Amino acid sequence: MRYSPLLTDLYELTMLAGYLEEGMAEKPAVFDLFFRNNPFEGGYAVFAGLEPALEYLEGLCFAPEDLDYLRGLGLFRPRFIEFLRAFRFRGRVTAPPEGTVVFANEPLLTVEGSLAEAQFVETALLTTINFQTLVATKAARVRHAADGAEVIEFGLRRAQGPDGGLSASRAACVGGANGTSNVLAGMTFGLPVRGTHAHSWVQAFPDELTAFRAYADAFPDSCILLTDTYDTLKSGVPNAITVGQELRDKGFELRGIRIDSGDLAYLSREARRMLDEAGFGKARIVASNELDEQVIESVRNGGGRVDIYGVGTRLATAAGQGGGALGGVYKLVEIDGAPKLKVTSDIAKATLPGKKRLLRALGADGRFIQDVICLDADEVQGGDTVFDPANPLQHTTLPEGSRLTDLRGVVMENGRRTDNSETLATMAERCSRELALLPQGCLRFINPHRYKVSISDRLNALRSGLIDELRRKVG
Amino acid sequence: MRYSPLLTDLYELTMLAGYLEEGMAEKPAVFDLFFRNNPFEGGYAVFAGLEPALEYLEGLCFAPEDLDYLRGLGLFRPRFIEFLRAFRFRGRVTAPPEGTVVFANEPLLTVEGSLAEAQFVETALLTTINFQTLVATKAARVRHAADGAEVIEFGLRRAQGPDGGLSASRAACVGGANGTSNVLAGMTFGLPVRGTHAHSWVQAFPDELTAFRAYADAFPDSCILLTDTYDTLKSGVPNAITVGQELRDKGFELRGIRIDSGDLAYLSREARRMLDEAGFGKARIVASNELDEQVIESVRNGGGRVDIYGVGTRLATAAGQGGGALGGVYKLVEIDGAPKLKVTSDIAKATLPGKKRLLRALGADGRFIQDVICLDADEVQGGDTVFDPANPLQHTTLPEGSRLTDLRGVVMENGRRTDNSETLATMAERCSRELALLPQGCLRFINPHRYKVSISDRLNALRSGLIDELRRKVG
Repeated sequence: MRYSPLLTDLYELTMLAGYLEEGMAEKPAVFDLFFRNNPFEGGYAVFAGLEPALEYLEGLCFAPEDLDYLRGLGLFRPRFIEFLRAFRFRGRVTAPPEGTVVFANEPLLTVEGSLAEAQFVETALLTTINFQTLVATKAARVRHAADGAEVIEFGLRRAQGPDGGLSASRAACVGGANGTSNVLAGMTFGLPVRGTHAHSWVQAFPDELTAFRAYADAFPDSCILLTDTYDTLKSGVPNAITVGQELRDKGFELRGIRIDSGDLAYLSREARRMLDEAGFGKARIVASNELDEQVIESVRNGGGRVDIYGVGTRLATAAGQGGGALGGVYKLVEIDGAPKLKVTSDIAKATLPGKKRLLRALGADGRFIQDVICLDADEVQGGDTVFDPANPLQHTTLPEGSRLTDLRGVVMENGRRTDNSETLATMAERCSRELALLPQGCLRFINPHRYKVSISDRLNALRSGLIDELRRKVG
Repeated sequence: MRYSPLLTDLYELTMLAGYLEEGMAEKPAVFDLFFRNNPFEGGYAVFAGLEPALEYLEGLCFAPEDLDYLRGLGLFRPRFIEFLRAFRFRGRVTAPPEGTVVFANEPLLTVEGSLAEAQFVETALLTTINFQTLVATKAARVRHAADGAEVIEFGLRRAQGPDGGLSASRAACVGGANGTSNVLAGMTFGLPVRGTHAHSWVQAFPDELTAFRAYADAFPDSCILLTDTYDTLKSGVPNAITVGQELRDKGFELRGIRIDSGDLAYLSREARRMLDEAGFGKARIVASNELDEQVIESVRNGGGRVDIYGVGTRLATAAGQGGGALGGVYKLVEIDGAPKLKVTSDIAKATLPGKKRLLRALGADGRFIQDVICLDADEVQGGDTVFDPANPLQHTTLPEGSRLTDLRGVVMENGRRTDNSETLATMAERCSRELALLPQGCLRFINPHRYKVSISDRLNALRSGLIDELRRKVG
């Protein structure tokens, strides 16, 4: 997929033109991409969207028609258009692999390069990482609620247009969905695709039994029947059992049924009983209809017997997150070797200046203790004092004997990817493994355990110093 | 843009294969696309997304690599793959033009064709119409709240990936946004693009004044300065005024300032006063930061003096709508000339069977009185009794002398568009004109006036008859 270089906010271009004008375009700069709050008021996020972001960076260049359009805006001087003609991204990107469990305030991507190239890519990086990280996180939550049952992503029809649906399917599978209904996502990303028939199939026939027989005839070895077009327990399940018996006579097995409305806990429990009594203990029950982690939890708590959850709208649109968006931001942290800070009215929300590393402290059993953000040259080890970034008066001691690992690596150097791409399955396994190593209270939906993310002594001192300096300047 | 035919839920393909198997693929069928509730608990929706939907239909065909992939799934028989090779959409589509104000339960698109083609396009049509209609509606609400101030769409970085952002920009401008920050949307759809600089611009310089001077130097005739990097009233606005005076000395005028944090009502009021006192009465004030119709309303009620609202995340993701999605559905209403019905546990929610027209009753002054959905052959006129679709016991009389106009026309015949495409500006004008003709209580955000949508006598009778028939069948 080629991404257009014009897929950007105009101000990235006006700033670029300004930097060129000022002779600053080639100054070395460092930007961090991070978010300020864990999505869904939850205890973690699942990092996703890196691969498409790197693809964008690697392919970034302006075509003649892009330049013609920009020239026609009447905003830019000819010298700038010529500069864009040769413009490429040649910088370095540091990031964790996709599927890594991450937290608020942690630098996810760090982009180093000329001020021009590192600034320009802001919008495109945010678009990709914000959305995919949000959906991957949602998928992980849904998967946790499903407690071992399968989760299939069904959201294409409610996604933000074609490509929104494609990104949603990809991210959902990073976060733990087992497959998707989106055929193009299946082809593009090698994901399992799932689906059988709609209510309209049943309506297109004189009656439900005829419709079920016709479907079983066309797909005898993958037959899942939608049972709620008229009445799930009075009509749908009995007809499915009849067709299941006919299939069995021909040497096939009914794969399952799907319920798409009503009280899913009650209906799935009753359907399970009816199927079992008729000798279809292996037929699986699929449930769908505006599901999310809360609904799935309530279906399970209500004694539901669902084997596969089809989760659509609320996964693809990441419902439950204020504004359906991860508020990821991209901030300048260093220019010309000097660390930079962005303050807001709330001084505790000042950004973390300088080029940094993101460390995770592991216990002897490999479980996650806490994360530490430190300056690039810092040495951090068990026994060190580390600080709460929101409240520098709060500090804590890293447990002696904890092992510190760097969560991120250089994934792009001189504008080229340093690694081969991973499969989505590898990312999904990482996500699942890391979620198991997290303090399990972090997985709770309501008031989750707050995983500690601290900053190192030296990073804290650097930030405090810069804040004081700014205070003096503004008065 | 070419849309992949695989951008579909798998079940559209399995159903297609089944219909082919059953010899039903060529039966004539009619589907309606509609939504069941006005979005945002509001009083209306703005129809959008038609043009990309028709583009998709016109270009629909399977490439050899698509067929290879489907063959490789092991689900389909060779005859079906051959059928797909020649598969095109050759049907008819009836729809209102984009920018039309529409309501819950109204048939938006009606698709007529073979059962195969009309069923298959469901997912792609829903993806396009659901999202764009939702965002256009959100934009109309935001524009209404802005009460004459401009609205610029800023949401790309929080959209669902590249194409999600592009669709959002398009739809926002149908609904009333005056421009976008998204450069690709500007080029693709001929929209005005807007944007100046970010906080990082200010941070990249030794101090704010130097940063402002540099920006004014690069863009002397379109200079809007972001004033809240350090402190809007103590630092940002005074520095902007200094630079405004320097610009004026060189024969240019400061275009304006932008405020991106804090109490926007208070800050914009104070900034207005400071700018006016310094002789910059024409400098415009842009406000941004997580805006939506409610926030804008409160800024205005708080005495804010904002000329341009930059609305990002909450517009591009249609925040405030349950699940960030319009729950549009696509239902079979007729097959082989026989009207069809889909019931649910709530009988009042039964779909409207048969091929229908969508009429709007206008008063002598052109104002909208109510809408009426009727069967294709119905003659409806003032004085007729019409029925509430949710409660057939409730009926009302269309005012004598009301003029009934058909809201929809045939926009595609034999798979080809019947009209040239309109500009987005034409759609936006239609939207604005229609909103002015609506009972104004419909525009309220809280408990809006419920615009009446009735069904004709004959449609009501047809539906009641089909419901009775089904009741007898299921028992």
